[in-house]
Amino acid sequence: MSQSVGTLHQQVTGDLYAEVQTFYARQMRRVDALDIEGFAETFTEDGSVTHAGGQRQSGRAEMLAGMRANLPRYKDIAVRHWFGHLLIETDPADEDTVRVSYYTLVTQTDREGKVSFQPTFTVDDVLVRRDGRLLTQSRVIHRDSPAAAS
Amino acid sequence: MSQSVGTLHQQVTGDLYAEVQTFYARQMRRVDALDIEGFAETFTEDGSVTHAGGQRQSGRAEMLAGMRANLPRYKDIAVRHWFGHLLIETDPADEDTVRVSYYTLVTQTDREGKVSFQPTFTVDDVLVRRDGRLLTQSRVIHRDSPAAAS
Amino acid sequence: MSQSVGTLHQQVTGDLYAEVQTFYARQMRRVDALDIEGFAETFTEDGSVTHAGGQRQSGRAEMLAGMRANLPRYKDIAVRHWFGHLLIETDPADEDTVRVSYYTLVTQTDREGKVSFQPTFTVDDVLVRRDGRLLTQSRVIHRDSPAAAS
Repeated sequence: MSQSVGTLHQQVTGDLYAEVQTFYARQMRRVDALDIEGFAETFTEDGSVTHAGGQRQSGRAEMLAGMRANLPRYKDIAVRHWFGHLLIETDPADEDTVRVSYYTLVTQTDREGKVSFQPTFTVDDVLVRRDGRLLTQSRVIHRDSPAAAS
Repeated sequence: MSQSVGTLHQQVTGDLYAEVQTFYARQMRRVDALDIEGFAETFTEDGSVTHAGGQRQSGRAEMLAGMRANLPRYKDIAVRHWFGHLLIETDPADEDTVRVSYYTLVTQTDREGKVSFQPTFTVDDVLVRRDGRLLTQSRVIHRDSPAAAS
Repeated sequence: MSQSVGTLHQQVTGDLYAEVQTFYARQMRRVDALDIEGFAETFTEDGSVTHAGGQRQSGRAEMLAGMRANLPRYKDIAVRHWFGHLLIETDPADEDTVRVSYYTLVTQTDREGKVSFQPTFTVDDVLVRRDGRLLTQSRVIHRDSPAAAS
């Protein structure tokens, strides 16, 4: 099966697109299941998350402590993270590093089935491939704010 | 166009990822159009759906009857099913069977344009390829509920 | 990496699927950033948009004028366009023309983080590839309305 595709520099292949989407499908199932140990394992040992408010967690131990402190707020809700518009950039000089930017929408469904929404965010990740498996090395979360027209 | 990709067992290819997404794009257009005959045809003749409440419809005839009974509730709303985080698993011993898990969010827009949401669900499908075309053989729908932290 | 895939006429390849998704990821970042010049540049010079209300903008100059007139309504909100269920069709006789249909959901987040929703839409695009890069040649936006059961 062959089809004409664009010839731009660093055009993302279908295989890489599927690999990255599958990585996030697995990672988000873990965070949405409150499997915080399993979630931390999808990061490199020295992985970091910079939250929209500016706090930065560095290394799995710090991430776990931060998530554990937040668990009570998820006691009676089912959380789901929805992604949109992935932009995947590869580095020709380092095929095992992939930069990904994406939109996120987070739903919270309570026991009665009522759905509420967190503000939308845009996330910038650096993923690295180790032993054939993607891991998040760094994540920077930006809260979406009104744009200045240009 | 070649790019380094992961080497994990059963890594999903880009072609299969696109095929599965396209299958659902077609299937959901039918259900959202209330084309219940056309929707039933995207299942195998003996296909089954197990709903979140536990009821199970087995075979196209039962599915059609169930959907027909539900039609009145869609009289004045436009329904759209949104999918997220597809996880696609293939069976090396049977390349024409594909297991897919995904998140769903269902919007209902009334005639004034007001959007409301059903609770979120996670769905487990078994798809089979017959004469080069995917069909749903079984679908199990789970309503998302609060997770126990682990 | 090889996997069995369907053999239907015009099965979309993974590479094309990723190319089209990436095109929209870039185009929507521009419109959501209110970068109306950058957004217009993702259309062909003679590109057109037919809005759900029936108005039609033809050519980049008309598009820009229409978007500029609408800017004030986005002054204090962060807009995000979410896509679902892309259906991609290629023309074997013209590999550089791609027809795409997709669902859209538009979120508007105000400064307090409250999310509201526009009605859902279904969009039909014709994309063309020029110098290895996709551009929108025409876009027709349909507001989703209640379906008649069939």
